[in-house]
Amino acid sequence: MRRQNAIAAPLAGFTPQHFGFAIDGGIATVTLNRPEKKNPLTFESYAELRDTFRALRFEESVTAVVVTGAGGNFSSGGDVFEIIAPLTTMGAADLHAFTSMTGDLVKEMRACPQPVVAAVEGVCAGAGAIIAMAADLRVAGAGAKVAFLFNKVGLAGCDMGACAILPRIIGQGRASELLYTGRFMGAEEGERWGFFNRLVPAGEALAAARETTRALVEGPAYANGLTKRMLHMEWAMGVDAAIDAEAMAQALCMKTQDFRRAFEAFAGKTKPAFEGN
Amino acid sequence: MRRQNAIAAPLAGFTPQHFGFAIDGGIATVTLNRPEKKNPLTFESYAELRDTFRALRFEESVTAVVVTGAGGNFSSGGDVFEIIAPLTTMGAADLHAFTSMTGDLVKEMRACPQPVVAAVEGVCAGAGAIIAMAADLRVAGAGAKVAFLFNKVGLAGCDMGACAILPRIIGQGRASELLYTGRFMGAEEGERWGFFNRLVPAGEALAAARETTRALVEGPAYANGLTKRMLHMEWAMGVDAAIDAEAMAQALCMKTQDFRRAFEAFAGKTKPAFEGN
Amino acid sequence: MRRQNAIAAPLAGFTPQHFGFAIDGGIATVTLNRPEKKNPLTFESYAELRDTFRALRFEESVTAVVVTGAGGNFSSGGDVFEIIAPLTTMGAADLHAFTSMTGDLVKEMRACPQPVVAAVEGVCAGAGAIIAMAADLRVAGAGAKVAFLFNKVGLAGCDMGACAILPRIIGQGRASELLYTGRFMGAEEGERWGFFNRLVPAGEALAAARETTRALVEGPAYANGLTKRMLHMEWAMGVDAAIDAEAMAQALCMKTQDFRRAFEAFAGKTKPAFEGN
Repeated sequence: MRRQNAIAAPLAGFTPQHFGFAIDGGIATVTLNRPEKKNPLTFESYAELRDTFRALRFEESVTAVVVTGAGGNFSSGGDVFEIIAPLTTMGAADLHAFTSMTGDLVKEMRACPQPVVAAVEGVCAGAGAIIAMAADLRVAGAGAKVAFLFNKVGLAGCDMGACAILPRIIGQGRASELLYTGRFMGAEEGERWGFFNRLVPAGEALAAARETTRALVEGPAYANGLTKRMLHMEWAMGVDAAIDAEAMAQALCMKTQDFRRAFEAFAGKTKPAFEGN
Repeated sequence: MRRQNAIAAPLAGFTPQHFGFAIDGGIATVTLNRPEKKNPLTFESYAELRDTFRALRFEESVTAVVVTGAGGNFSSGGDVFEIIAPLTTMGAADLHAFTSMTGDLVKEMRACPQPVVAAVEGVCAGAGAIIAMAADLRVAGAGAKVAFLFNKVGLAGCDMGACAILPRIIGQGRASELLYTGRFMGAEEGERWGFFNRLVPAGEALAAARETTRALVEGPAYANGLTKRMLHMEWAMGVDAAIDAEAMAQALCMKTQDFRRAFEAFAGKTKPAFEGN
Repeated sequence: MRRQNAIAAPLAGFTPQHFGFAIDGGIATVTLNRPEKKNPLTFESYAELRDTFRALRFEESVTAVVVTGAGGNFSSGGDVFEIIAPLTTMGAADLHAFTSMTGDLVKEMRACPQPVVAAVEGVCAGAGAIIAMAADLRVAGAGAKVAFLFNKVGLAGCDMGACAILPRIIGQGRASELLYTGRFMGAEEGERWGFFNRLVPAGEALAAARETTRALVEGPAYANGLTKRMLHMEWAMGVDAAIDAEAMAQALCMKTQDFRRAFEAFAGKTKPAFEGN
C-alpha cells in the first residue's frame, strides 16, 4: 500500500540488477552479492541502491529493511578497478557528480521511514563501512571488521557523511582515530564502542538482524518512521527547539489509530495489532 | 535567598500536592510517591513538576536537586487510565497542549541552574525514563531498568526531547535501538553506555545521589549553574562559537567572589567556603 | 615547504621560549617542560602555544603533532600564583582578553591541518586537561589522571570549549559529571569512555603517540588535513548538509596526486608513497 505522497508504484515487480532484493513479511532484504570479490560497489550498484531506498520512502508495505552481504562478507567498498581507476581520470564536475551520488545513497537511507538494520559479517570496508554506519542499527557476526579506509587510498575520511555521523555513534575521539588511520575496528571493539548493537556468532548476523526487524515490524510503523525522521531532524537542533518539534510530532502520533489500538489492547489485556496508521 | 531576576518568593512554604518535596542542606529532593502504582505521572503531577523546576530557577538557597521515586521504583511513566485513556479522545490542539506541557517539564529541568541528579531504582519507564534522561547525572541501584517504551503504546520515540538528548548520552546507535524497540536497558548496561554515572547496590541509589549532590553543594553554585547553562547553550553551536561564548562566561565567573575565595583558600592552605556569588 | 596561503616562513628557526619544540621526520613535538611544577601554563606559554599552532597551519613539512609533558606529568594547568593570583585583580576587559587567548589556543589546535596526538602521563589537570581534550587523539600511560578541575577554583566548567567538546568525546552524562565535580578521571576509565584512544604502560605514552603519528605521517597529509577540517566544520551541521559538504571535499581530494599514487601503487602491488598534494 502507498500513501498520498507516493510518486508511483515504486517497488511493484522491482527487480534490481546489481544486488539481491526480496520482500518477506514486511521486511525488505538488500543483499550485496558479488561474493567472489567481497561484494564491491560499482557506479551502477550505488545508483540502484540509492533508487531503491528512495522507492522505499513511499512503500507502506515495507516496515523494516535489512542490508547484508553474500558469502561471509558485507562489502569491500568501491571496486578498485571499476570505480577508483576511472575516478583518477575524471574532471572535477564528474567527480562531484559521483560523490554526490554516493552521498545521496546515505541521504535516502536516512530519509526512508523504515529502520534499516545492517547485518555485518567479515569484511566491511570503505563504502561498505559507510552503508553499515548509515543504517539505524547494526548487528555483527564474530570476526566482522570495519574500516573507513579512505586515507589508505589517498582520500579524506569525509566520505558520504562519515565525519558527521561516525562521531555521534562512537564518540569524537574514536571516530577520529578510525578516520585518520583507516585501521580496522573489530567486532568486539565495535560492540563495546556502540557501533554494533549486538554481536552474535559468525554466520548468525543475518538471522539476528531479521529477529531485530521482526520486533520492528510488529511495532507501529508510522510512529517508528516518525522516530527516524525526528532523530534526523534534531541532529543539529538546540534542545528547546527539539522539545518543541517533538511536542508537535507526538501530538500528531496521538491522532493515529495505532495509539488507540494500543490503549484498547492494554485495557483488554491483549497484544495490540498495529496497522501503521 | 533570591536574585534580582526572581519573580516571586517561589518556594517559600511550597507544598506540592502530587509528589514529595523537601529541602535539606541546600538539596531539594523530589519524590514521585504513588508507590502502589509505581509512581505514575498524571496531568497534575506533570504540571506541578514543571512549576517546581521553574521556581527552582530563582531559588538561590537550593544548589542541587535529587529526583527519586518511592517504594523501590522510579516511575512507570504516564498512567494508562489517567493519561493515555483521555488522550485517545482529545482533539489536536489539546493533545499539542499536553505534549507541550510535558516538554516544558524537560525545558525547566534543563533551565534551572541547579544540577539535577536522578536516583533510579526498579522500573523507570516512559515519561519516567525521560525525567531520568533530562537530569544532569544519574545513579542506579542494581536491578534498575529503563525503557523508552513509547512505541509499545503506538507512539513515536520523539517524546519530550528524547531523539535529541538520548543520542548525546549513550550514542546514536544505542539510542536508536532503545527508541525503536522500547526495550528495557538494564542498570549494568546503562552504566557501561554512560547513561548511569554510577551503579550501587539495590536500595542505595538515593543515598549515593545525595552523596553526589553534597559535593555539588560544597562547590561554587553560581559557577556550577553557569556550567549547566553553557552545556545547554552549546548543544548545537559550532566549536569556535562555543569557545567564544565560554570566553565571556568564564571571564564573568572570574569576577565572582567565589573565585577570589578559592585563591585565598589555596594560598592559605585551607578549603574554600563558596557562597555562590 | 609552505603553501600559497602561508603568511610567512613561520617555523624556520623557531625556538619557543616557554616549552620544548622539535621537528623530526615530519612530526612536531611540543613538550611542556617545567617538571618541577608539573608543567604549569603561564600567560606567556599560552600565547606562545597559540602562536605555534597558528604557524603550523602553514607549515607543510609537518604532518602530525605530538603534545606531551616532561618529567612524568602532562600539565597541572594554569599556575596558581602566576595566573590565578593576577586574574583575581583584573578588570572585566582584561579577563575577557585572557579567556579569549586561552580559547584561541584551542581554536588553533583545531584549525591546523595536522592531527594532534596528546601523550599523557601523570597529572593532566585544568588547562592541561583542556589541551589533551583539544587534541585529535590521546594516548595515556597507566596512572595518568585527568581533571577538569575548574569548579575546584570557583570557576565554571565552560573553559576553552569544554562544554562543547568533552560531551562529544565521552558522552553528555559523563562529561557533566567531570565538569560539575572536577574529579579525576583515571586512565582506564578514560580509555573505557573513549577519552583515551590507547592505554600503555606508565612512561610509554610518548613512544606510543609517536608510533601513532608515524602512521599518520606515512598517510596522505592533505587528505588527513581535510578530514580534520570537515570534522570541525560538520560539528553543528545537519546530516544532509554534511553529506553535501563532504561530496565537494572528497571530489576535491580525488583531484590530488596522492589519490592517483594510491591507485597506481595498488595496481602495481606496491605501497603508495604519499606526498601531500
